[in-house]
Amino acid sequence: MDKWHFRNATLATMRGEGYGLIRGGSVLTLGDRIVFVGRDAEVPTSGDARVVDVSGRLITPALVDCHTHLVYAGSRADEFEQRLTGVSYAHIAASGGGINATVQATRLADDDALRKATLTRLDRLIREGIATVESKSGYGLDRDTELKILRVARSLEQHRSIRVVTTFLGAHAVPHGMDADSFIDNVVIRTLRHAHAQGLVDMVDGFLEHIAFSPTQIRRVFDVAQELSLPVRLHAGQLSDLGGASLAAAYGALSVDHLEYASKSEVAALASAGSVAVLLPGAFYTLREQQAPPVELLRQHGVPIALATDSNPGSSPMTSLLLAMNMGAVLFGLTPAECLRAVTVNANRALGITDAGRLSKDHRADLAIWDVEHPSELTYRIGDAALKQRIVGGQLC
Amino acid sequence: MDKWHFRNATLATMRGEGYGLIRGGSVLTLGDRIVFVGRDAEVPTSGDARVVDVSGRLITPALVDCHTHLVYAGSRADEFEQRLTGVSYAHIAASGGGINATVQATRLADDDALRKATLTRLDRLIREGIATVESKSGYGLDRDTELKILRVARSLEQHRSIRVVTTFLGAHAVPHGMDADSFIDNVVIRTLRHAHAQGLVDMVDGFLEHIAFSPTQIRRVFDVAQELSLPVRLHAGQLSDLGGASLAAAYGALSVDHLEYASKSEVAALASAGSVAVLLPGAFYTLREQQAPPVELLRQHGVPIALATDSNPGSSPMTSLLLAMNMGAVLFGLTPAECLRAVTVNANRALGITDAGRLSKDHRADLAIWDVEHPSELTYRIGDAALKQRIVGGQLC
Repeated sequence: MDKWHFRNATLATMRGEGYGLIRGGSVLTLGDRIVFVGRDAEVPTSGDARVVDVSGRLITPALVDCHTHLVYAGSRADEFEQRLTGVSYAHIAASGGGINATVQATRLADDDALRKATLTRLDRLIREGIATVESKSGYGLDRDTELKILRVARSLEQHRSIRVVTTFLGAHAVPHGMDADSFIDNVVIRTLRHAHAQGLVDMVDGFLEHIAFSPTQIRRVFDVAQELSLPVRLHAGQLSDLGGASLAAAYGALSVDHLEYASKSEVAALASAGSVAVLLPGAFYTLREQQAPPVELLRQHGVPIALATDSNPGSSPMTSLLLAMNMGAVLFGLTPAECLRAVTVNANRALGITDAGRLSKDHRADLAIWDVEHPSELTYRIGDAALKQRIVGGQLC
Repeated sequence: MDKWHFRNATLATMRGEGYGLIRGGSVLTLGDRIVFVGRDAEVPTSGDARVVDVSGRLITPALVDCHTHLVYAGSRADEFEQRLTGVSYAHIAASGGGINATVQATRLADDDALRKATLTRLDRLIREGIATVESKSGYGLDRDTELKILRVARSLEQHRSIRVVTTFLGAHAVPHGMDADSFIDNVVIRTLRHAHAQGLVDMVDGFLEHIAFSPTQIRRVFDVAQELSLPVRLHAGQLSDLGGASLAAAYGALSVDHLEYASKSEVAALASAGSVAVLLPGAFYTLREQQAPPVELLRQHGVPIALATDSNPGSSPMTSLLLAMNMGAVLFGLTPAECLRAVTVNANRALGITDAGRLSKDHRADLAIWDVEHPSELTYRIGDAALKQRIVGGQLC
């Protein structure tokens, strides 16, 4: 088994509160696991480990992008341009724009084309030290396309050194000319059962909003998820408060995502359920939203906060998790330490992963080595992917 | 002389209004000049030119970052972190933070250390297709350090394929314990004469603001610039309107930069003088400013709009010009075509460069080839530097 000893590092272990900094630190890995984290002077005999002196550079757990819609075809740059030249959203939607443009392009793309488009975006994320990415379906709005999206997401692990968590988001939008209830029963739930039977689903998500699905409709989907023993998450509180956090909490949701409009009782519900609040500043920025999520309430209630790119062609055409960290600080007032926790330990937790996200013995050997001296730099810098080396499952890549 | 023929491209020539798009287009270069731009079918015999089929990719003029404070030492990540953990700016400043921290670190760094720190940032810009960068002094606040900063800026051309325009910004901030008037007379103006005599200054800038220098003080500097036949620019209207645009216009300024608070008469003054409005959304974003620059007025008056990173350690620790383009659209409402003009033809104009920024015969052969099909993608995508190839002075690099 591969055995590495990274020494002379500044370690952001993410143990305890804050960064859990160790200066002059070492990490030893054996196979795909971390076997030692501590000071250089305290390293046990590392025997035949290959030794890498990182010259004081920073080592963090590898990053995790825990909320993306990465698998889609087509581009919405044309529509972005139209909106900025004064064309109304109503006109764009009526001419087949908006999410329907992405649905059409994604339906038409075959697996290879869809994978190629996705790998381009995935490679941007990888340049910033991501070892795990979550990827949702939701641009199919029909059975075969939803299955294709999930299949392509699963296949990414064969093409890159990356761990992929797949999320079924059948309840993303109501297709043109269809009744929402009948879509939930005849398409969403049936497709979920199919996809689960094919081993394509790690978790189930939904979009609770006036412009998407109601609490009752989301519950119908979550009931099936529960029957299939699949964990759930929910898009809620992005544009209004429909009680999504308490709905999701009742199902023990791993996370509730967006949350700009979450009230105090909603935050308390998250806290009781142990759900993670996944904040998505890229969409907040792109849509020029004004109401930020209730960060202070989340802190007071001890709700773990994660950040993600929400990478998608409409509201967040973003492939930089470091920028999501910077936006978390600048737009939402998170501290740099909270931002780094948000894309390591808490992002893993939002995906139900408990053996990654910290530099700890027996955790997965997923590391990122950075050309910076202090972890605050990762949040502070804008547009500077100072990644030196990514290590996934104990392999340099 | 090197002779290249790039064919089968989508060309954003930036001629006329908008993108000046040509599909199925060719660019021929000879030495450091463009010798033909047009449709593939119309290419004159290209003889012994090396032919590159770019497979439908986009070719634009290389980008220009026309407003940066790129040469400095140290980091202000610690201070960024302090502010987000609730430490007041007054306390940070009193403990030697703020611009003084950068001044101290820059004074202590030797030429090599300063160049190394700068090259790291320059390399980020270069990854996004920049061929020309402007670099200001202003972190010295004393003669020797200002000269050192300008010397390092000039030296960058020996280390990378890049054109550097140097700007003397002695009037950037008043050093602790010094009177602003005496600083202008005894340090700024004397240093400007020295630096000019050493051939280190291409243009002269100043910071007009309540927290910096007054109109009278800026005029004293600009009078000397005029005497030395150096063009001027001005930081004005970032936090208040002190009449900076009309002041600068009276000196025929190449540009006035920031401009959030510029009034209608100020915009009219820019228009009469033919000055460029350089907008800096990175600082607007980082400082969470609320008043955007008067884009509609600038359009109505036909003032050319440029965008730049304003890369600096305090208000804009940003090294992505593509992100400045996206922010120009999202935060200021510029169209993607305006954003691309803002970093090509108009950015060159802000630097007094007239033979670059368009794909035109006899222009410099500074090109960028992108892995996208339409130029709107460059502004639409967030965190995606889709650069395929940079060509500077007719050389692939």
